[in-house]
Amino acid sequence: MKDLVGACIFGQSGGPTSVINASAAGVFIEALKQKNITAVYGAAHGIKGILEEDFYDIGQEDMDELLLLKNTPSSSLGSVRYKLKDASVDDTDYKRILEVFKKYNIRYFFYNGGNDSMDTCNKVSKYLMKAGYACNVIGVPKTIDNDLYGTDHCPGYGSAAKYVATTLMELNLDAKVYDKGQVAVVEIMGRNAGWLTAAAALANYKGLGADLIYLPEIPFSVEKFLSDVKRVMDSNGGKCIACVSEGIRDKDGVFIVESLSSAKAKDNFGHTQLGGLAIQLADLINRTYGVKVRGIEFSLMQRCGAHLASGTDIEEAFNAGRKAVQAACAGKTDKMVVFERDMSSGKYKCKYKLISVELAANTEKKVPLEWITPDGTGLTQDYIDYALPLIQGSSKSPLEDGLPKFASLKKVKVAKK
Amino acid sequence: MKDLVGACIFGQSGGPTSVINASAAGVFIEALKQKNITAVYGAAHGIKGILEEDFYDIGQEDMDELLLLKNTPSSSLGSVRYKLKDASVDDTDYKRILEVFKKYNIRYFFYNGGNDSMDTCNKVSKYLMKAGYACNVIGVPKTIDNDLYGTDHCPGYGSAAKYVATTLMELNLDAKVYDKGQVAVVEIMGRNAGWLTAAAALANYKGLGADLIYLPEIPFSVEKFLSDVKRVMDSNGGKCIACVSEGIRDKDGVFIVESLSSAKAKDNFGHTQLGGLAIQLADLINRTYGVKVRGIEFSLMQRCGAHLASGTDIEEAFNAGRKAVQAACAGKTDKMVVFERDMSSGKYKCKYKLISVELAANTEKKVPLEWITPDGTGLTQDYIDYALPLIQGSSKSPLEDGLPKFASLKKVKVAKK
Repeated sequence: MKDLVGACIFGQSGGPTSVINASAAGVFIEALKQKNITAVYGAAHGIKGILEEDFYDIGQEDMDELLLLKNTPSSSLGSVRYKLKDASVDDTDYKRILEVFKKYNIRYFFYNGGNDSMDTCNKVSKYLMKAGYACNVIGVPKTIDNDLYGTDHCPGYGSAAKYVATTLMELNLDAKVYDKGQVAVVEIMGRNAGWLTAAAALANYKGLGADLIYLPEIPFSVEKFLSDVKRVMDSNGGKCIACVSEGIRDKDGVFIVESLSSAKAKDNFGHTQLGGLAIQLADLINRTYGVKVRGIEFSLMQRCGAHLASGTDIEEAFNAGRKAVQAACAGKTDKMVVFERDMSSGKYKCKYKLISVELAANTEKKVPLEWITPDGTGLTQDYIDYALPLIQGSSKSPLEDGLPKFASLKKVKVAKK
Repeated sequence: MKDLVGACIFGQSGGPTSVINASAAGVFIEALKQKNITAVYGAAHGIKGILEEDFYDIGQEDMDELLLLKNTPSSSLGSVRYKLKDASVDDTDYKRILEVFKKYNIRYFFYNGGNDSMDTCNKVSKYLMKAGYACNVIGVPKTIDNDLYGTDHCPGYGSAAKYVATTLMELNLDAKVYDKGQVAVVEIMGRNAGWLTAAAALANYKGLGADLIYLPEIPFSVEKFLSDVKRVMDSNGGKCIACVSEGIRDKDGVFIVESLSSAKAKDNFGHTQLGGLAIQLADLINRTYGVKVRGIEFSLMQRCGAHLASGTDIEEAFNAGRKAVQAACAGKTDKMVVFERDMSSGKYKCKYKLISVELAANTEKKVPLEWITPDGTGLTQDYIDYALPLIQGSSKSPLEDGLPKFASLKKVKVAKK
């Protein structure tokens, strides 16, 4: 609806990224400029902050700090994992949201997150429409998993991919330093889609990558893995680097990390076995071939490594926030901002579009199978061409005492009405 | 000995760092300038390359690539862990080294590494002197452990400390993002000295650090650890970040990682238990308090994270290499380059000196106990004042395709004589 006058609220949801706060900066800075937006609120811990009337008055923040958000990792407002029930089953939360929105005259709602967050965004949007409450709702995409439907790529992915590729290049140099065999198994995030693990191939493109890359898109065979590792070791002085997505599964869909730890647990008379996938696979290689193996997890570092953020990703995430506000103020609702790749000039350009938030909420985008090499252990040039533009440029994070200067918001709470 | 004319050889030894190649660049670029040095060789895999007459002709490298070494992590020539026997017990290796040095008229020997490498350097130096073979031997220090005697700090430490502090700041923001309790145990390198783990306190100084920091200088009690974690969780909404040095030991000197895994192994009927210290402690916290815990290892990334190298460290490492060559060409031998902190101008300045390599080889420097807070879980301002100057400035690593451009040496082998 056009010409709505009222407050806006913005929430962050799901796992944090290096650039989710860049989108927050985009939303806040743009919203503060819009004359139809009477107040700019940030919800503490996403939808939970709305349900509990726990939000911050962004109008009281300094512009310098809002700009620092562009280089500050994690979710400055706090995040949440909260799944709204279907309104037809239980509409308690929805009634409460409507009540809160009415009380504060909230007419613009921006929600930043991945699949689950877009599900929330979609459900709230649909409920408010049905209730006849005028509120423009726009989703802002975010996920290092890069698995949102309808967008060329997702804010957060480029930075995480740059972290994975850069760190793997450094590890590659480190791992081959001794004149003897050594195997490294590197575990990379991505439960269902292998986009982030695929970023290892960017290091390969620079000649310093992984010998083997396994994505969850291809069923994983432990036997084939062991023989792949053996083949690489045999032709490579006993050295091998294998990257695995945390989400690799066998042909029956069972997570490899679960089948390995339950196999060991049985062996250990029912006691559970510690360790993630990397350490389990490293242990398996060690027990099978008796070689030195190191299991390495990029852990939380890959999603919060803002010092290695992609300049392109930061700008696009920031713009995604701005575009969401501009679209809402132009009367759009029930949409999510998406990126379209424009190569018409021969150079990568990102265009901002809108799609139905419902579509984004319920569809998952995986790595195209034709981008995975036939032996299932690498990526084709198509992937490199796709990913390279997304990791260009660096964070302009200012240093203070030789360490990054992150945003420190005042977080003035809005008085409860 | 002064006015020696002949070839020089340089070797890298021990675990790689972000800046060990910066010292290589310093040695090579300075040696190529010196008129008394007739050829510049790089030993493949340290002392092993010398024993096997396996070395590269650095004179054939391009200057651009040698300069890129300043930003290239790991050991470009290859490293080695090889302990020379006492010459009085078995002088086979020494005779061989002397034979190789004579064959190639090697009159300058530079060796880059930590305690063990300085032991090698010292033994070779003493043997050559005793054998009456004129060769100027200078050790170039290197270790992320920062535990070499006689130097204010070691090349490699500032960069690893910057990695630890920056990454911990980012993790701190990530770890507190949800509105519920969560514990993280972060494992940092350092077997005997806690210098690198202490760098976590630099993140504390910026307000985004660890609640608890445990160094190997203080005997570790699992019971106290659990109660420390509980206390922090209780006062902090269930959140706690604890950093532990991999080398923490109990009061009897037993490594905690060993006592925990053997305790669990017994429990598991003798089967070994996977996982490093972080994962073992995380598991223990989880079993004791039933809270969500993540074990995080900075693994190899902390020693090869050249993209986060300290500009100060890079320059000092480079200069350490140059000073070694200058000293040798001025007739010095049997020494190691050390750093002296000069605060006379009120600002940090690094002065380069020499000490006896024997001293450096056999003494280990730990974190002063008075820099550790009385409760054994933090560092005092003295440590911050010590460490801050070492992490200043950034790597000037050029990017290509959005990824670091590392040196790629030709590595032309010297024909065996």
